Amino acid sequence: MTELRDLRIDGARLMRRISALAEIGPIEGGGNNRLALTDADREGRDLVVTWMKDLGLDVGIDEIGNVVGTRAGRKPGPPVMTGSHIDTVRTGGRYDGNLGVLAGLEVIEVLERAGVTTRRPLAVGFFTNEEGSRFQPDMMGSLTYVGGLSLEAALDVEGIDGPTVGAELMRIGYAGSLPCPGPAPAAFVELHIEQGPVLEARGTTIGAVEGVQGISWQEITIVGQSNHAGTTPMAMRHDAALAAAEIVSYVRRLAHTVGGHQVATVGRLDLHPDLVNVVPGRAVLTVDLRNTDDALLTDAETALADFCEELERNEGVEIEARSLARFEPVEFDPDTVLLVEQTAQRLGHSVHRMPSGAGHDAQMMARVCPAAMVFTPSRDGISHNPAEHTDPEDLEAGANVLLQVLLELAEREEAT
Amino acid sequence: MTELRDLRIDGARLMRRISALAEIGPIEGGGNNRLALTDADREGRDLVVTWMKDLGLDVGIDEIGNVVGTRAGRKPGPPVMTGSHIDTVRTGGRYDGNLGVLAGLEVIEVLERAGVTTRRPLAVGFFTNEEGSRFQPDMMGSLTYVGGLSLEAALDVEGIDGPTVGAELMRIGYAGSLPCPGPAPAAFVELHIEQGPVLEARGTTIGAVEGVQGISWQEITIVGQSNHAGTTPMAMRHDAALAAAEIVSYVRRLAHTVGGHQVATVGRLDLHPDLVNVVPGRAVLTVDLRNTDDALLTDAETALADFCEELERNEGVEIEARSLARFEPVEFDPDTVLLVEQTAQRLGHSVHRMPSGAGHDAQMMARVCPAAMVFTPSRDGISHNPAEHTDPEDLEAGANVLLQVLLELAEREEAT
Repeated sequence: MTELRDLRIDGARLMRRISALAEIGPIEGGGNNRLALTDADREGRDLVVTWMKDLGLDVGIDEIGNVVGTRAGRKPGPPVMTGSHIDTVRTGGRYDGNLGVLAGLEVIEVLERAGVTTRRPLAVGFFTNEEGSRFQPDMMGSLTYVGGLSLEAALDVEGIDGPTVGAELMRIGYAGSLPCPGPAPAAFVELHIEQGPVLEARGTTIGAVEGVQGISWQEITIVGQSNHAGTTPMAMRHDAALAAAEIVSYVRRLAHTVGGHQVATVGRLDLHPDLVNVVPGRAVLTVDLRNTDDALLTDAETALADFCEELERNEGVEIEARSLARFEPVEFDPDTVLLVEQTAQRLGHSVHRMPSGAGHDAQMMARVCPAAMVFTPSRDGISHNPAEHTDPEDLEAGANVLLQVLLELAEREEAT
Repeated sequence: MTELRDLRIDGARLMRRISALAEIGPIEGGGNNRLALTDADREGRDLVVTWMKDLGLDVGIDEIGNVVGTRAGRKPGPPVMTGSHIDTVRTGGRYDGNLGVLAGLEVIEVLERAGVTTRRPLAVGFFTNEEGSRFQPDMMGSLTYVGGLSLEAALDVEGIDGPTVGAELMRIGYAGSLPCPGPAPAAFVELHIEQGPVLEARGTTIGAVEGVQGISWQEITIVGQSNHAGTTPMAMRHDAALAAAEIVSYVRRLAHTVGGHQVATVGRLDLHPDLVNVVPGRAVLTVDLRNTDDALLTDAETALADFCEELERNEGVEIEARSLARFEPVEFDPDTVLLVEQTAQRLGHSVHRMPSGAGHDAQMMARVCPAAMVFTPSRDGISHNPAEHTDPEDLEAGANVLLQVLLELAEREEAT
């Protein structure tokens, strides 16, 4: 028998499965449209379930439609689990989510062919509606799996096109019988494309994901005074656009001064009355603050609020902020993160510890078991776009790290 | 006979005419909707023409619908002219335009009652479609009167509701026979509300208007790179919203540094894709620059262009600007401005030399004769709004200045 540490995945076989799944719900440019619980999603599910069964996995479907294929271990007990999602946004790429599921199947195939049975069971799953494009919230399947959303509430959610999650699960034949919330695995590790530009820019192959950033979304409304752009002297203005611009500039400075992995973005900005010759009397903008450290994220929120108060006085405007969303950061299990890092190094890959800026199913699983993620580079940081791309050798590297991390976790005496 | 210098208008009589005209096309809040060449405009015109005839004026209507009532002088020749407009925006006040026309009629009534015949003829007019709300361009009647727009082009303009200027003039019975362009008067002086906050803020009663600001309107398009707000580190962004904010802030600094009566406004700003969690890849904004000095206005345009070039380099974005409008400043006749100023002082009123930030018929008449304007304060600088207000004593003061300026001009041996 080959030493477990020397087992490697078959990159070509992984790419064949990725290409085959990408043929379902194809869109122009090589990407996919497999919105959750549509016919295209059903076809994708059917294909992956066929592969799971071909690999001898015991396939179970739960009440929210999550699908988990399990391979028995030498001893009973909770499995070491991997997986991700196969639903896409309307203009999705072929790697987002799919990579993590199909790399999991590749791991199983490697073990089958090597005749290896791990100490603990191994499981590969895909969660329902990770993207949230058709039904909100996103990460619905994993959130419901860990008990963060009640099954009833999830099933009642109406899609943007009308029908509910429950009705669509029935329609496509994925309203399963396994109870949800489901059992906690021994550990959960998810392989995913980065969806950002950090690894590519660093020339690094593997990201050892330490956690998912906390998110604070605010909508800020500025009320000044609408006035004639020609007749109102500068000193007599209460210009909502100017106050908004000051906030946009401040938000960047804030990202640099707060520390940690702080990012800050003004993504929306509307002026009223929005006429070339009228000093804007009202501006509405959004601020997206993210940090892996919740205390720093709170500091950033406080600093922004202080700045707005000062701005009210300086510009003679009124500013009100309301929270649109606030999620605390998720920290992955340090031992598992370290395992990812050391495994990548052992395999000869460059590796970088980093936070995830986007949300993933692994952050939900982290509520019930030790969890971590492996990132591979995204060309130009592009995702949610048919142009989404990761080089095949990077996909292979990521899948090998996943394989070796799962083997290590599955052979351990104690749950990590 | 009373000394001409001691003649004064009857404030109550002026207010009665203003109130009577405001009863035509009334809107909630005490304002008016008399869009050009509508039935309400016809009713307003009919009322003013009746008053002109009651005062013994010789009423003429030209081919673009401008109406001029003339009172003979002791000698023939071109008249000293006053007037303004009686069309309004859709949510207009009762003073904008109307004040200048009705104060002109009050001047005539004072002379009638005093039995005074001036050396030169006096004329009071109202110009077609000054507001430009229904038909573009604005100041259409006076622009056509001075030959700045061909009669044919003006008559062919289609309104926002379909019919042409020519058809509507015929329909309401104001397609006159006097040729347009029309004859140059000896001088033109227009009384108007300021429509800005300067006089009120200074506590000054009379504005001696030295000219109308030049206007430069630009649309600036910034192309950066759209990216995930969570996964894109600050240093790797090409944020179109940030570049736009820098321009908004710069435009204010520019107004302070360029000098003259520079004002600068960003009135419109649109981001794309305009989503809370996406770094904006594109921003489109407008910049409205105005200055009474054309060289300084050009300096401001150049400085803004230089700033945008620097911004392109610093932010890694592409910036393109296109001109939406460019009007050179208009300078009123210095002697006539001085006469307005000295007359206000002689009558015991505080007076302030100032530019007009908004366009007026007088700026068109300035192309063919010595012209100037008299401003009265606008409460809170509000105009184009039913809340538009000027205190009756200020209206009276302005009308008395107009009376004395017209008398001085009408008695002069030589055209000023």
